Amino acid sequence: MSKIQNKIDFILELEKLKGVLRKTKPVGLDRYENSAEHSWQTTLTALILLDEAPAEIDALKVLKMLLIHDVVEIDAGDVFVYDTNARAEIAEKEAEAAERIFGLLPAGIGDELLQLWHEFEGRQTIESKFAKAVDRINPVLQNLASHGQSWVEHNIARERVLAMNSEIQAASPELWTVLEARIQQAPFFKQ
Amino acid sequence: MSKIQNKIDFILELEKLKGVLRKTKPVGLDRYENSAEHSWQTTLTALILLDEAPAEIDALKVLKMLLIHDVVEIDAGDVFVYDTNARAEIAEKEAEAAERIFGLLPAGIGDELLQLWHEFEGRQTIESKFAKAVDRINPVLQNLASHGQSWVEHNIARERVLAMNSEIQAASPELWTVLEARIQQAPFFKQ
Repeated sequence: MSKIQNKIDFILELEKLKGVLRKTKPVGLDRYENSAEHSWQTTLTALILLDEAPAEIDALKVLKMLLIHDVVEIDAGDVFVYDTNARAEIAEKEAEAAERIFGLLPAGIGDELLQLWHEFEGRQTIESKFAKAVDRINPVLQNLASHGQSWVEHNIARERVLAMNSEIQAASPELWTVLEARIQQAPFFKQ
Repeated sequence: MSKIQNKIDFILELEKLKGVLRKTKPVGLDRYENSAEHSWQTTLTALILLDEAPAEIDALKVLKMLLIHDVVEIDAGDVFVYDTNARAEIAEKEAEAAERIFGLLPAGIGDELLQLWHEFEGRQTIESKFAKAVDRINPVLQNLASHGQSWVEHNIARERVLAMNSEIQAASPELWTVLEARIQQAPFFKQ
């Protein structure tokens, strides 16, 4: 098969991510968010925070990582970040999904994206730490703007929200200071 | 207001793009696509085509452009690419939207993104020509995979589809050769 047909197959495979639903709702819309629109907003959020990042960060690598970070959910589905048991169990399935989906591409770009996905999940490099932190921001902003929608639906305690999202500091200490205070003051937590 | 609050305001404003509907449907889903998920797929499509682009192209600029290219639709709405009268009328409204929405950001990053949006629309630089061409690809693939869904719904003739999308050559001549042949052979055009 030609390289261009391989790329067409990959692009059409991406259509499926538009049908993978998350636990949060877009602010103002009465439906669950899909992982494709989330991936867009997260990548653009990284772009506007990169001017606070260390000068040596590779901005292009951060954007690439966030564009592809949820593609594995096409096979593995979205797992709620607070469901820590399910998150541990899904890791192998996600790695297989990465092999299959990036394997649709010609070898050069496919290998690059597979490697970037593993780097993102490994959380060891400056770019992956920044990108992982950015990935936490939008659900927090959505919940703070929507009476804690997904936190309330799943009965997540304030302390767990704080613990799970303090990683945001790695993208923007100033943003985390603001968000932490708003989570502390939010009226919708039962615990 | 602090710079970080300006960034929060911008990120929350982006939520609205998830409610702006296009004329195409994601392949396999019985609903119209929104401009947020389209923006993600288009940016990722650019990423996998950049290895065919001239070496001097600025990949980071291309990805930034495509991440923000439809943000103006929050105010101006999505206009079908084949509706050329409406497209001409909407230009001023889109420019005002760009001023307002990127104006939510701190001056440095806000000015950069406003400039990038104008560069994209101006279609004069190597990056904007490439990005504009990539923006045409996904609706064509979606329609070819879905019995010409948006083309049939709006009674767009084969010749107009060919004329409107030949710009794809600027991103990938090889891809356009494949797509042109499939449009020529598609059984669903009445004209």
